Formats: sequence, C-alpha cells, structure tokens
Amino acid sequence: MNTTILSVDDVRTVIRHVGLNALMDETIDGIVDACREFEHNKFEVPIRQGFDYSVPEMGLLEWMPAMRIGGHATLKVVGYHPTNPSKRELPTILSVAMTFDTISGHMIGLVDGTFPTAIRTGAASAVASRILASKESKTLGLIGAGAQAVSQLHAISRVFDLEEVLVFDTDSEANRTFSQRVAFMDKTGLVITSCASEELVSRSDIICTATSVDIASGQVFDDSGLKPWVHINAVGSDFPGKTELPLSVLRRSLVCPDFSGQAVKEGECQRLSADEIGPDLVKIVNNAEVYSRYSGKPTVFDSTGWALEDHVVVDILIRHARELGCGTEVSIESVSADPRNPYGFSLSKSGYGDTVGNEVLASRPLRALP
Amino acid sequence: MNTTILSVDDVRTVIRHVGLNALMDETIDGIVDACREFEHNKFEVPIRQGFDYSVPEMGLLEWMPAMRIGGHATLKVVGYHPTNPSKRELPTILSVAMTFDTISGHMIGLVDGTFPTAIRTGAASAVASRILASKESKTLGLIGAGAQAVSQLHAISRVFDLEEVLVFDTDSEANRTFSQRVAFMDKTGLVITSCASEELVSRSDIICTATSVDIASGQVFDDSGLKPWVHINAVGSDFPGKTELPLSVLRRSLVCPDFSGQAVKEGECQRLSADEIGPDLVKIVNNAEVYSRYSGKPTVFDSTGWALEDHVVVDILIRHARELGCGTEVSIESVSADPRNPYGFSLSKSGYGDTVGNEVLASRPLRALP
Repeated sequence: MNTTILSVDDVRTVIRHVGLNALMDETIDGIVDACREFEHNKFEVPIRQGFDYSVPEMGLLEWMPAMRIGGHATLKVVGYHPTNPSKRELPTILSVAMTFDTISGHMIGLVDGTFPTAIRTGAASAVASRILASKESKTLGLIGAGAQAVSQLHAISRVFDLEEVLVFDTDSEANRTFSQRVAFMDKTGLVITSCASEELVSRSDIICTATSVDIASGQVFDDSGLKPWVHINAVGSDFPGKTELPLSVLRRSLVCPDFSGQAVKEGECQRLSADEIGPDLVKIVNNAEVYSRYSGKPTVFDSTGWALEDHVVVDILIRHARELGCGTEVSIESVSADPRNPYGFSLSKSGYGDTVGNEVLASRPLRALP
Repeated sequence: MNTTILSVDDVRTVIRHVGLNALMDETIDGIVDACREFEHNKFEVPIRQGFDYSVPEMGLLEWMPAMRIGGHATLKVVGYHPTNPSKRELPTILSVAMTFDTISGHMIGLVDGTFPTAIRTGAASAVASRILASKESKTLGLIGAGAQAVSQLHAISRVFDLEEVLVFDTDSEANRTFSQRVAFMDKTGLVITSCASEELVSRSDIICTATSVDIASGQVFDDSGLKPWVHINAVGSDFPGKTELPLSVLRRSLVCPDFSGQAVKEGECQRLSADEIGPDLVKIVNNAEVYSRYSGKPTVFDSTGWALEDHVVVDILIRHARELGCGTEVSIESVSADPRNPYGFSLSKSGYGDTVGNEVLASRPLRALP
C-alpha cells in the first residue's frame, strides 16, 4: 500500500507541463466549486491549531485539516518563521501537505505546501475580488511587495483586465525586484510602478495588503483618498494582534472573512464586533449576485488562509502529477499479514514465525526490574 | 533541504538490527524521561483532534501533535477504521508520523506510525505498571487478544518476571493464535493459557483490557474475585462512549489517566467525576515513591494514547534509522533562490528569469471575465 511522494522536482515538472496560469485558473474555479459544496455540508474544516514559540526562534507551526465528507482528507502543516529569509535564506513560510483516504486511513500522498499556499492565497483573493470589486477595475495596488504580492497580482490578473500595478514596500529591494519576479506573466501593456503609499491608495481600484508588519504596530496605509468603490484583499493579518487596515476603513466597508472562526482570532476581524463582520467567502460565492451589488462600495476580503483552499490546490497538484506519472511510490505504513500482529511485518516479508528474525529479535537479555 | 522518508523496509531494518526488546526498553525509558521533562515545562502537548465520520466507512482520522520546546515537533496522524481487518485485510489502526524542526519549520522526517503506536502503548502500560502494580506480579491477564495485546504482554514482560499469561477474547481465532504471535519473545517457562474471563480476573496480578467492545455495550469483565492488589491497564477505551471496566472497579481504584484532558473525553475517566480521578502519568512518574505505595491496592491506568509517547518512540526510530543509514532523502518543500518569489523554484533550477520556462508558463490565453 503505497504513498505517493512528490518531490519539489515533481512539482516543477507539473508546473512546466500544466503552466502556472492553468494551475491558478483551476484553483480559482476549484475554490468556487468547493465553496458551493461546503454550503451543502460536503466539507468539514475545523479551525487550524498550532504551536507558537519564541525558542529556538520566534515561530509558528500550524496544522490545517480539511475533509471532503466521503472523500479524502488533507492536512497541511505550515511553518511561519520570520527570520528564515535573513538568517537561513529560506522563505518565511515552509510547508508540506498530505492527503489521507477516509476508507482505511491510508496516507495517499505528500507534497510541498509552500507553493500551493501561494497559489491558493492568490486564488482566494481573485474569487473574492471577482464578486466584490468593481468589474471595471484596471489599477491594482500592492502594499507589501514580497512573496505573497507575486501570487496576488498573478491571481487578480487572471480575472481582471489590469492595466496598471502600483507597488509599495518599505523595503526598497522588494520594490526594485518586483517587476522581475512577475516577468513570467509576460503581459504586454501592464505597467508596473512603485510609488508612495498615498498615491497607491488614491489610484487603486483593488488593493492587496500583504506585509510583515509587526504585531500591534498599526495600519500599513492611511484612510485618505481611497476610491469609493475600493476593494481590499487584506492578506497579511494572520496572527493575534497583527492587523494591517485602518479601523475606519474596516468600519465603513463590507468585511468578508474567508473563515469567520479564524478571522476573529487572527484576521482584521479581530478588531470588529460580530455585527460589523459581513458574510464569509462561502456565503458570497453562493450568493454572488446579491454581493456583487457591493462592487460600488468599499469592501474588504479578510484573508487568513483557509484549509478548504489548501484541499483544493493540493488535489489539483496531485491529480496532474498522477496524470504525468510523477512521484515516487513508497510503502510507509507497516501492515502485517496478520492484522492481529503489530510486529508481524518486521519478522519476515511473508508473515510472522520467521526463525532467523526471532533469533535476532530475542538476542538481548531480559531487563531487570528497577 | 531534504526530508528523510523511512519506508516500512527501513523500519524493518531498524528492528532487525536493534531488536524489538531494545526498542521497547528504550521507549519505556524514553517515556519516563519525557514525563520528567514535561513536569519541567519542556514539552507542549495539545489535545488531539480529528475527523470522525460514518461515510464511506465508520472511521476516525486524528492528528496528535507534541513539541519539545526549543527542540522539534512530532505530528502523528492515526486512522481508526474497525472494518479494515474484515473488509480490507488491513489493521484497524493505520498511522504515519512526521517530525518538524522549530527553527525553520522544515519537515525532518516521515515514518510509519502503526508500529510505533503499538510499541508506545505497550511501553506506557509498562511505565504505569512498574509504579502501581505489585512488584511481585507473576500473572498477567489479557482481555482482548488482538494486536494491542501483543505489545502489552511484550512491554510488561520487560519490567516484570512474569510466569503465566491468561488470555481471554470473545473471538476464538484470536485466542488460538495468540501464543504464535508472541513467539518472538522466546521466553522459556512463560505459560500462556486461554481461559474464561472469571478465571482470568481472579488469578491475575495485572490485567490489560484491549478490546474492540462497542460503544455503550458495557463492561468487558465482571467485578468479582479480583485480587485486592490488582493493577489494570485499560487500553481499549479511546472513544466517547466506549469504556471497558466495571464502574465499581473504577470507583474503588486509584485511577491514573495518561492525559486527563483526553481521558475525560475518551477514556474510562469519562465515567468519573473530577474528584474520582487520580494523578496522571506525569505525576506518578515524578512521584514514583509516593504512588508505589498504592501497589497493594487496586489501581487503574487509563490509557487513551498520548502524543508525548509518540514523540518519544518516533525519535528513537528515526535516530536508529539515521545511525544505520536507512531512509531516502527527498526534497519536498519548494524553496526559491529568492525568498520573495514563491514561483522562482519552478522557473529553473538556477533561479527565476528562465526564458524557456516563461514561454511554457505563459502559453495559455488570458482568462475572460465571467
């Protein structure tokens, strides 16, 4: 009974064959479909849990489970270690994802979770923006030009005919390299400019905030000059105490969390009372016509990252990998010929009662009582 | 940055080189050490969570996290699917375990969790029995002669000089095959007999209950003729509503849960009020002299299976595998040369900006607005 292990080379092969655009489009569609199924109780998605710690480094290790009822379960494990880039030349987020069948409990597959996290976070913003933002949106503002900004722009560009991208980051290196990092999009005519936060805010139809702002260090832009129809994807708020938006903007906007239970703990919603929080992603997807009417008003998608989205993108990756014959099959779980013998597998490949095995196994003396 | 994947063949190699007895002894010692460290706040062990479902099969999929603070974290995923043996020739429990560093969030290793679960469940009973049972215990009674009974006997035999094992199972096949399944122990002079439940109960110094009794279907033996110093390892109770012991036995015994928060939900402790529940495993290990005084009185170890125990045994297995050079190194997490570019790894091995990659990636047309 094998588990499919997808190496990072396998994921690279999938991307090269399928294309980043197709993967993003499939994820966007997949999240919409999953939100429809969720509405009909076809998914179970508990709130994520994790360890947060200050030794050996400030960090967070979380596990994010999701299950399609009667189908399979996904568990993504994600580490958030802000010192990774500066101290270890690693991304802040390192992650793996695995899938399990719910017939026998067998582990089906293991795959990178870092790239899927980027794709699904972008895709979720695209889904929300498609419903809540003005259909005529041409200008996207990116506050924070790090890793997340790449997939935010990529995703939004798949559902809007963008003409201009305005970029602001407190780190000049991030500003400087951004256009190179999105060169793969190869979109002629798309103008990418870095500019001051004030200009960005006043000119953008859609804004994505994806910063590493410190806990309780305040808003990442001022509530001044925003377009009346602005839609904001608030991506960076994902930790108790960490928020990005001015409270006044939240208060006058329709605020849609991806997953309320999580957003009130970790997202922008932690600053709002229950009656200030709008419908969640599932609700707006399932009532898209109703909520599209808000596209002329200020709206916020409070994106904390939802395990349902991970389930979708991991499925897509594994399906393509299978079709392409990628991956290594490894037998991980010990299974004995006799299910009543938990050691049986170890004695010989044919079952228990292997004399040579027994001699090896019994070769140590009995342990004395303490 | 590689992850070590241990196949079931690798685990078999470890067992053949190290020996089942040595692995059991190291796990027993390791659990004692971990309980001492836990007392000094060196571990964090949240309560396990999971999915339980009735489609496609009645089953349970749980994740059990544990972290040595400043060290690494273990996550065991365990499936409990009672129809596995009859329908799929698989054990009821299928499990995998993985470890993560808490410096960067990197996944260190993946290994079978089924065999470690058997070992650590046995080892935990051995630790509790060594403190709570009579030091002169010679007769072990096993109620339920399935997979768990094998490692219960194995573990207890490492810390007591047993002379006789009495076995009772409602399934005659389980009774008949039990002595074959523990033949690896090769302990001359140890008499293994199956007998009626009444006889077993009246003659045993230590009893292990490890049955698959249905929820709310009542006790697995009667409170009649028990030795005044009997120690019971109650292993089978691991689900809300599922218990094995007569309430009267619980009420007159010192009941020690492995992990209170879990035992009151899933163990024998769910039938007791707070003041009827005794010290937990950590407390008896750290005050072994005090609680050894109960060895002349009836005592119960309420074992629901604790993630700390998994952390210990998984560590031992991975350490031996490393020493023996077992395992396959696979790079799972995507890491881009530029941590600000989540897609960078896919464009070329040397970084982003690969033209061939770009052409492949941009080959699909832009998606139309809905």
